[in-house]
Amino acid sequence: MKKIHIIGLGLLGGSFALGAKKKLADLTITGYDANPQHQKDALTLEIISEAKETPDADTDLVILATPADTLGDLLLATLDQVGPNTLIFDVGSTKSKLTNLVAEHPKRAQYLAAHPIAGTEYSGPKAAFDDLLDRKVMIICELEKTDLHLKEKAYELFEALNLKLRFMDPEEHDRHLAFVSHLSHISSFMLGETVLQKMADEKNIFDMAGSGFASTVRLAKSSPAMWAPIFTENQENILSALDSYIANLSSFREKIAQKDKEGLFNEMDEINKIRDILDLEK
Amino acid sequence: MKKIHIIGLGLLGGSFALGAKKKLADLTITGYDANPQHQKDALTLEIISEAKETPDADTDLVILATPADTLGDLLLATLDQVGPNTLIFDVGSTKSKLTNLVAEHPKRAQYLAAHPIAGTEYSGPKAAFDDLLDRKVMIICELEKTDLHLKEKAYELFEALNLKLRFMDPEEHDRHLAFVSHLSHISSFMLGETVLQKMADEKNIFDMAGSGFASTVRLAKSSPAMWAPIFTENQENILSALDSYIANLSSFREKIAQKDKEGLFNEMDEINKIRDILDLEK
Repeated sequence: MKKIHIIGLGLLGGSFALGAKKKLADLTITGYDANPQHQKDALTLEIISEAKETPDADTDLVILATPADTLGDLLLATLDQVGPNTLIFDVGSTKSKLTNLVAEHPKRAQYLAAHPIAGTEYSGPKAAFDDLLDRKVMIICELEKTDLHLKEKAYELFEALNLKLRFMDPEEHDRHLAFVSHLSHISSFMLGETVLQKMADEKNIFDMAGSGFASTVRLAKSSPAMWAPIFTENQENILSALDSYIANLSSFREKIAQKDKEGLFNEMDEINKIRDILDLEK
Repeated sequence: MKKIHIIGLGLLGGSFALGAKKKLADLTITGYDANPQHQKDALTLEIISEAKETPDADTDLVILATPADTLGDLLLATLDQVGPNTLIFDVGSTKSKLTNLVAEHPKRAQYLAAHPIAGTEYSGPKAAFDDLLDRKVMIICELEKTDLHLKEKAYELFEALNLKLRFMDPEEHDRHLAFVSHLSHISSFMLGETVLQKMADEKNIFDMAGSGFASTVRLAKSSPAMWAPIFTENQENILSALDSYIANLSSFREKIAQKDKEGLFNEMDEINKIRDILDLEK
C-alpha cells in the first residue's frame, strides 16, 4: 500500500493518518477538510503531506471521516471519482443508512462499511494521536459485499493499527451503538445540563471532584458537530433506547418517592451484574 | 491525639483508619462493624487493632461511617456513651436530618457534621486504602456548633490526611450533593439497567470498550447497601434533581424526534461549558 487519502481530518481521520504513518513504510497520505483551519492544522501537524479535495487515481484507500450526516453524499461522490483499484471505507457511527444507500450501486464492491469504537471527548486534528486506534474494536458490516482483493488493502491497515475486527449486520450495529455509545453520550450531556441549570442560581456546586460527577459527565464535553448528526441519523434506535432509559428513571424515581428502600436495594443489586460485562472487556 | 474509634469499617471508615495510622504516630485505632466478616477482615487487614462495640472513655475521636439511614440512631447512642473529652463526627452523604436531630441535644457541641467527597465504586474493608482521602474535599456543616477545643482533634486528623475543608450549611450540602453526586449515581445505574435489559435479547452488546460506556456506567457498580439509604434520606432534593434530569431528557428526545439538528447542536454547545467547571476542579 502506497497511497491513502483521508476526507475529514479530525480526531478519527487524523489518528488513522498518524497511526498509519508510524506503522507502514513509504506511505503517502493526502487529505481534505472542509474546515480550512483544520486542513491547515493537519498539514502543520504532518497528518497529511498534501491537501487536495479529490484522491489521485492511484490511491489505494480513501477513508471518509466526516460527520455522520454528510457521509451519504460524500460516499456517492467519492465512488464516482475513484478508479477500479481504490477501496473506500467510512468510519461513521451509523451504518444502515449508508449500506442501504449504496446497496445497488455499480461500484458497491469498492466500499467497506466500518466503524472503529474509539474516540475521546476532544475533536479536531489537534486532538488526533497515533495510537488512538491501538487494540480498539473495529466493526465491519456486510464484509461479503466488498471485493475480495480490494479488502486486503483495508486489512493491511487494520492489522498495522492492531484493530480487533468484529462483524455484524448494519441494523444490529446501529441498535447496539444506540444503547451503548449513543445513550451514554445523551445521559452524560443531560447530566451536565441539569447541573449547569442548578448552578445558575447556586454557588459551590463545583469543587466536587471525587463525587463521581467528573467521570459520569466526561462525555458532555464531546463535540456537538459530531454528535447532533449521529442522533438524527440513528433516530429510531436512539428514541427506543431513550424511552427505555426514561422509563427506568421514572420507575426508580417512584421507588424513591415511596421510600421503598428494599425495592431500590434489589434493583441496584441486579444492576451490579454490569460488573461481569465490564470485566469481560478487559 | 492517642485514640480513635471507628464504627463502620467499610471503604470510608477503613480508609480513615489506614490514612490516620500512616500519618499519626502512637495512635490506637479500635472499631466495630455490624457485619462480622467485615469486622474480622478489618482486624486481619490491621485497619483496627481491637474490635469493640463501644469506645473507651478516653477516646479522642469517634468516626461514624455506617449507611446513611443508620447514622441518626447511632449518633444519639454514641453521644450517650462518650465522656466529655470525645468528639464524634460522621461521614454520611446527607447532613440536614442529622443536624436537625441533634440540634437541641445537650451534647451537641461534641458532634461535628462532616462529609468527605471521596469513594470508589467498591465497598467493604478490603476496598479501603490509605490515601483515598488524600487531597479530597471535606465538607463541614455548622462548624460553629461544635466545641472549640474538641474540634481541634478533628482538625489534627483532617490536616494529617490532607483534606481540603469546605464549609456550607446542611441544606445547601444536601441540595448540592443531590445534583452532583447522587444524580450521577442514579444516571449511571439506570444506564446500566437499560443496557442489561437490552442484552437480555441481544448478543454482542458488550465488547464495546472505547465507546464511552465504561466510564459512564462505572458508578453502576456501586454498593446498593450504601446507596439505597442515601436516596431515601435525601429524598426531596433527589426527586427535584431527577425531575429536572428527566425533563431535560424528554425535551432532548423531542428534538431528536423532530430531527432538529440545529437545536441539538445548540443545546450540546451550551452544555460544553461544563468543561470550564471541570477544569476548575483541577
